[in-house]
Amino acid sequence: MKRILILHGPNLNLTGEREPDVYGYTTLNDIDTRLAGLARERGVEVTCLQSNHEGQLIDMLHEARTWASGALLNAGALAHYSYALRDAVAAVAYPVIEVHLSLPAARETFRSISVVAPACRALVSGFGWRSYMLALWGLLDLLEDS
Amino acid sequence: MKRILILHGPNLNLTGEREPDVYGYTTLNDIDTRLAGLARERGVEVTCLQSNHEGQLIDMLHEARTWASGALLNAGALAHYSYALRDAVAAVAYPVIEVHLSLPAARETFRSISVVAPACRALVSGFGWRSYMLALWGLLDLLEDS
Amino acid sequence: MKRILILHGPNLNLTGEREPDVYGYTTLNDIDTRLAGLARERGVEVTCLQSNHEGQLIDMLHEARTWASGALLNAGALAHYSYALRDAVAAVAYPVIEVHLSLPAARETFRSISVVAPACRALVSGFGWRSYMLALWGLLDLLEDS
Amino acid sequence: MKRILILHGPNLNLTGEREPDVYGYTTLNDIDTRLAGLARERGVEVTCLQSNHEGQLIDMLHEARTWASGALLNAGALAHYSYALRDAVAAVAYPVIEVHLSLPAARETFRSISVVAPACRALVSGFGWRSYMLALWGLLDLLEDS
Amino acid sequence: MKRILILHGPNLNLTGEREPDVYGYTTLNDIDTRLAGLARERGVEVTCLQSNHEGQLIDMLHEARTWASGALLNAGALAHYSYALRDAVAAVAYPVIEVHLSLPAARETFRSISVVAPACRALVSGFGWRSYMLALWGLLDLLEDS
Amino acid sequence: MKRILILHGPNLNLTGEREPDVYGYTTLNDIDTRLAGLARERGVEVTCLQSNHEGQLIDMLHEARTWASGALLNAGALAHYSYALRDAVAAVAYPVIEVHLSLPAARETFRSISVVAPACRALVSGFGWRSYMLALWGLLDLLEDS
Amino acid sequence: MKRILILHGPNLNLTGEREPDVYGYTTLNDIDTRLAGLARERGVEVTCLQSNHEGQLIDMLHEARTWASGALLNAGALAHYSYALRDAVAAVAYPVIEVHLSLPAARETFRSISVVAPACRALVSGFGWRSYMLALWGLLDLLEDS
Amino acid sequence: MKRILILHGPNLNLTGEREPDVYGYTTLNDIDTRLAGLARERGVEVTCLQSNHEGQLIDMLHEARTWASGALLNAGALAHYSYALRDAVAAVAYPVIEVHLSLPAARETFRSISVVAPACRALVSGFGWRSYMLALWGLLDLLEDS
Amino acid sequence: MKRILILHGPNLNLTGEREPDVYGYTTLNDIDTRLAGLARERGVEVTCLQSNHEGQLIDMLHEARTWASGALLNAGALAHYSYALRDAVAAVAYPVIEVHLSLPAARETFRSISVVAPACRALVSGFGWRSYMLALWGLLDLLEDS
Amino acid sequence: MKRILILHGPNLNLTGEREPDVYGYTTLNDIDTRLAGLARERGVEVTCLQSNHEGQLIDMLHEARTWASGALLNAGALAHYSYALRDAVAAVAYPVIEVHLSLPAARETFRSISVVAPACRALVSGFGWRSYMLALWGLLDLLEDS
Amino acid sequence: MKRILILHGPNLNLTGEREPDVYGYTTLNDIDTRLAGLARERGVEVTCLQSNHEGQLIDMLHEARTWASGALLNAGALAHYSYALRDAVAAVAYPVIEVHLSLPAARETFRSISVVAPACRALVSGFGWRSYMLALWGLLDLLEDS
Amino acid sequence: MKRILILHGPNLNLTGEREPDVYGYTTLNDIDTRLAGLARERGVEVTCLQSNHEGQLIDMLHEARTWASGALLNAGALAHYSYALRDAVAAVAYPVIEVHLSLPAARETFRSISVVAPACRALVSGFGWRSYMLALWGLLDLLEDS
Repeated sequence: MKRILILHGPNLNLTGEREPDVYGYTTLNDIDTRLAGLARERGVEVTCLQSNHEGQLIDMLHEARTWASGALLNAGALAHYSYALRDAVAAVAYPVIEVHLSLPAARETFRSISVVAPACRALVSGFGWRSYMLALWGLLDLLEDS
Repeated sequence: MKRILILHGPNLNLTGEREPDVYGYTTLNDIDTRLAGLARERGVEVTCLQSNHEGQLIDMLHEARTWASGALLNAGALAHYSYALRDAVAAVAYPVIEVHLSLPAARETFRSISVVAPACRALVSGFGWRSYMLALWGLLDLLEDS
Repeated sequence: MKRILILHGPNLNLTGEREPDVYGYTTLNDIDTRLAGLARERGVEVTCLQSNHEGQLIDMLHEARTWASGALLNAGALAHYSYALRDAVAAVAYPVIEVHLSLPAARETFRSISVVAPACRALVSGFGWRSYMLALWGLLDLLEDS
Repeated sequence: MKRILILHGPNLNLTGEREPDVYGYTTLNDIDTRLAGLARERGVEVTCLQSNHEGQLIDMLHEARTWASGALLNAGALAHYSYALRDAVAAVAYPVIEVHLSLPAARETFRSISVVAPACRALVSGFGWRSYMLALWGLLDLLEDS
Repeated sequence: MKRILILHGPNLNLTGEREPDVYGYTTLNDIDTRLAGLARERGVEVTCLQSNHEGQLIDMLHEARTWASGALLNAGALAHYSYALRDAVAAVAYPVIEVHLSLPAARETFRSISVVAPACRALVSGFGWRSYMLALWGLLDLLEDS
Repeated sequence: MKRILILHGPNLNLTGEREPDVYGYTTLNDIDTRLAGLARERGVEVTCLQSNHEGQLIDMLHEARTWASGALLNAGALAHYSYALRDAVAAVAYPVIEVHLSLPAARETFRSISVVAPACRALVSGFGWRSYMLALWGLLDLLEDS
Repeated sequence: MKRILILHGPNLNLTGEREPDVYGYTTLNDIDTRLAGLARERGVEVTCLQSNHEGQLIDMLHEARTWASGALLNAGALAHYSYALRDAVAAVAYPVIEVHLSLPAARETFRSISVVAPACRALVSGFGWRSYMLALWGLLDLLEDS
Repeated sequence: MKRILILHGPNLNLTGEREPDVYGYTTLNDIDTRLAGLARERGVEVTCLQSNHEGQLIDMLHEARTWASGALLNAGALAHYSYALRDAVAAVAYPVIEVHLSLPAARETFRSISVVAPACRALVSGFGWRSYMLALWGLLDLLEDS
Repeated sequence: MKRILILHGPNLNLTGEREPDVYGYTTLNDIDTRLAGLARERGVEVTCLQSNHEGQLIDMLHEARTWASGALLNAGALAHYSYALRDAVAAVAYPVIEVHLSLPAARETFRSISVVAPACRALVSGFGWRSYMLALWGLLDLLEDS
Repeated sequence: MKRILILHGPNLNLTGEREPDVYGYTTLNDIDTRLAGLARERGVEVTCLQSNHEGQLIDMLHEARTWASGALLNAGALAHYSYALRDAVAAVAYPVIEVHLSLPAARETFRSISVVAPACRALVSGFGWRSYMLALWGLLDLLEDS
Repeated sequence: MKRILILHGPNLNLTGEREPDVYGYTTLNDIDTRLAGLARERGVEVTCLQSNHEGQLIDMLHEARTWASGALLNAGALAHYSYALRDAVAAVAYPVIEVHLSLPAARETFRSISVVAPACRALVSGFGWRSYMLALWGLLDLLEDS
Repeated sequence: MKRILILHGPNLNLTGEREPDVYGYTTLNDIDTRLAGLARERGVEVTCLQSNHEGQLIDMLHEARTWASGALLNAGALAHYSYALRDAVAAVAYPVIEVHLSLPAARETFRSISVVAPACRALVSGFGWRSYMLALWGLLDLLEDS
């Protein structure tokens, strides 16, 4: 059975509590549960991890090399400066989809560029918790294509 | 029955023929047919239009004010400079989802910023023709939420 | 009798309906009617045209070469990138006054520069629909001077 | 009776004498006289002041808090760097209209941005001495609206 | 017999009348006639079109896919911002030569970069109407080489 | 007895009245009174001056050379462009502490850089009127250290 | 009893040893001891933590949500690029004061901007170890106000 | 007898005392005395003025219109941002020579551009107090030429 | 008989050998021979020179003042930074045409601007060795016109 | 016996497996073994550590203060933004040599600047695994010199 | 007897002939003769050299190390980009005065910065051929001071 | 026997004499002698050349095409602007190693980018004269690998 890595970056552990106007009221746990449900429907398995540490996110991307068919990555604000994370995405063979709850381009200027994106395969943002669902759906379709 | 506007911008009429390495082999017609199929499944209707004219895209966004519940907009390269299109998106009440076949951030530098995005609700890019399918799905979910 | 061209650019057809906090509740029709009234008072005639198409705005500026003594141009968001429109203004002999309902400099950063302005004769902005009235008044005075 | 402050910034005392190709042959005195005439017509009073001192312009804007219904401000070259003047405009409750004799955007690059503008209500430029007349007319109309 | 598309962009319809110091006194009609003469000499046919509409220029480039062996494109001021036109040039298989009457690099700063050029094959500018003649000659030679 | 100069720059005379959301309801007089109280407690004397004139602020900094042991300087918006004020701070031997009521970095972009700061000794901002109290306290401690 | 979080970022563990010309000879331990003393005086408690890990600083800010009334944050060089830390500060409800031993604006160019500051409440820098004392004093005063 | 205006800007009153490594030990009084001596030698008269006020410098430049044959202007740090001073120089008919004691280009980056220079006739800097002597000599020669 | 200077800049001596994908297989000698042939056809003479030394290119441009009716200049990479070469072109009275084998705008970013171009009369690039032929043809036509 | 710290940053654990076109087929283990061999030859000892965590790299640099005579640092992509790492290098007394397998300047634009370099002593890059060998050799020579 | 090097850079050999509006009608020979005259008056000797070659200018600066007490350097357009020339000036012990005939800051934007200046001692520009005379006078005075 | 070109750029002839704090006391002759010694050890031959002329450096790189197996290039300050030198490096088939005595990134801002580097194979800097030794060693190893 295919396994998919779901990686949540800095501050996403507070989802549902932090700035709900921007990020919504759904908690990260809810999101992970819904992703697991969708995964079951599509006959795959998801492993959901969160870390506020750039280094752990890189470690996790590396570690998954042996078992993941693909990954969803919400890098949080690291998306805007972590070239090390970008290199980690470029270093692994499986496709990575960038995900954001909000639409970063519609917020502060520094959020209008993602330095991680050039190493990713695709991007979904602005749908709140549904961004993850659509990204998972799309990733699985891409994997079936190839 | 809800109606959704699907708007394809400049050069998208050549999809399937133009630079297939970047944009894939699926034609715009195929995409529209698949969107219509998905729409039927979800009990809505889609109206698909393509134009190479910034002005017509604006006209279409305006005209749809009276009947559309939402729109998908693939602005093509206009995404990178058409502030007039951005103002048109901001001027209409219904939500607009930005869509791209490829992942612009992974291409030339000028594609790393979308000036249209700040007026949009959400964004899907990099999944090829599936970007549209995911975006439609996501838009319909957002409409059901509200 | 002198004839003046009044040219409204992209999205101005929605004036009165679109973002009324920014642009006010007066419709474009109202504005044209008031301009016609003022024109009558001053013994001139106005021809009012609106288009969301950069190309049509250029065509109209060209076409008016044979009959217009001057023009008011609200280029909308095209003011911030349409060098082709700027060249059209530079290509015609009659004076063109740039007009805006709002004060662009007080809004998003990209609105702080007008690339069309360097080819114009004068500028009025921020008075709502009255921007047009003042601009017409000023244009007629300039024409009488010369 | 409503009172309006007319504030002329650095170098405007030389109007009529200084670079007449750019600024015209009308003196500042002439302009003030014409403004007074127009004010009488509209049933208001104007107080006209000129200073080459940023600090005095700020003092005058402050002092007028107790009596002015609005102001015209030609900040001269201070428009391009005086954030202190901008803060003064933002600090007073009455509306301020930015005025220029010439069209700064059509001159040197440094004149294409006004840092004072974002705190102003509206802008008239490029009509020579008539810029003031139109601005006064427009200001009075705005005051009647509200 | 080979057919070549000659595409004239915004404001070029006024050539011969508009700013003759910059663009010369030869009309667009004269240029097209001379190009047709040169084409006859070289045993090919030219189709000459002008539009002030970005969208129509794109449509024409697309439409010529079925019959053109190459094209000359004078994009006018669109050369400096129309990424959509650039994408259209990149989308067609035949070679496109960028042409300008004047030497844009010797004029305003914004003209020193052409965003269309990277998708073109070659460039001729600054020879007035002769820019077109040289470009056509060069294009035909390139076509014979390949 | 040590004497400390307290220097308030442009628009600070309106403190308590101007944009109270940003600057609070305490007047400049209140602040000066509290500073005098704190000074008494610490056995020093303060001289409080306000000016909207860059030149007077420089004059005051110079004049205090003969008697001041240190100074607090709230340069207002001059902080963002007055290199002359910076040179004045660098020209005097006593330490100068930059003070702001609000936190400039959290406001408009132009406020994120202080050109005066590199010549200052330390900085306190964002505590409202308390910024001054803390700065005075800190300055006196620094003076005691040396 | 109110509790305050004191957070020291990268390289601050070497304070007293590292570049003493810039940062002084007082050790971090000394600083924490003095802060504890001041806290006792004011009837509050401080919890002092140091980490060279961006992720741990974020974790600590999050963890303190349940017990801290406010925090002092010396982000060290992270202040100049860690948007993730900024988001963490924005994500918690209690006020955070940015603190620096030196005056960053007076050093290398890259230190003149703090990306963390816009999410903070206030800022103290340049007083050496006293920066912390003043910041704690000020924070407690702010907490008493509200 | 020809009269020459010598204008010293902000902080120059401290010359000889302020940062003597950069500006030397000669006082402004000494400089003025030497200039007067040189003037006598050349059969002209100098009027030396110093002000820390941008506005007074402008006033003095204006006032000298009626009697000065030329001027030396050491604008101090105003040279780097005072567009109003530049306009004042451009507004007067007599030639103005920019003078600096130090060589600004060899100091901080912000000093590498003078916004006043484009309106001046010539420039002498880096010779300490001798900069003035050379500039006066050169100005008188230029005046004799014309 | 008219004489034309053909000037080849740095690295062009390796043409035909160096990066043939970019510059083609034709040698500089071949190009000079073909230019001589074309010159004979048109009844003029060409003098072909190559140098890798900016100074020699300037010397040659100067020296030709006495005999050249015009010049072709392929400045190679000097085109992107040699303001001295630009000044040399501006210093001579005869027209100079900028030539490039490749289309610089389609290569690295630094090649998108030519600092020499503003002093030239016209430009041909991207036709390989034919760029020279077309440029010579065009130059001779321009010379006949005038 | 002298001890040298060898520090490998993010993603270097994948060396030999990750993008071998760029980084070669030698594993990090191989590199460490070869460094140990070279160290033995030179009579010193190396301690080799790798981490994907910026914080751990800083911790390791700090920890080595007590025993290291020098260090090699391959900061990976952190080189391009980690000012905290730069400060750590500046905070320790022993010399640090920056090392890269590839030549960053020949890759994406963001790699052309290292923010860590200004605190380092020397730099070796582009020799693949041999970069480390040369850097170690050079470091030992530098240590012997001093 | 002291010897002074006079170094004229690219295109200065054409002085008197080239763009006389900008550079005047005096030839380089005239300038050298006048400098020799002035030198005689002051009891020193000048050696005047001109070259269009950056390398020769550097060679000459180096060569003069053994005999020159100082130098005047008119680097022409090299002033705006030749960091090698700047390094040469920094490498020699004698003082170098930068000289220009025109006032570069009043011309094209690229002339507003001299990269050579930071290594020079002083600067004279805008006095035409007299710039050299004043610079020589000033240099000799500086040499006498030290 | 393999031959290696050693190329020293502008101002390196003064090594040992010029700014010894930055570049050390070893002369260029010493360096060449040491390189010859090392070459003998490795069984190759070195040819050492120095020039202050960009053009000669290019000529030498070209000339060595027929005999060199590789080269060391210390371009001096040309590294920061000579695109012609970069093109020369790109034009030759043998590998070129960029060498610097100092660590340019740790000096003035303009030295933080090398425009020559992208065409080079590897880079050594900051080891003083040893930079050359390490670079030669590394180059020979690379040549043996391939």
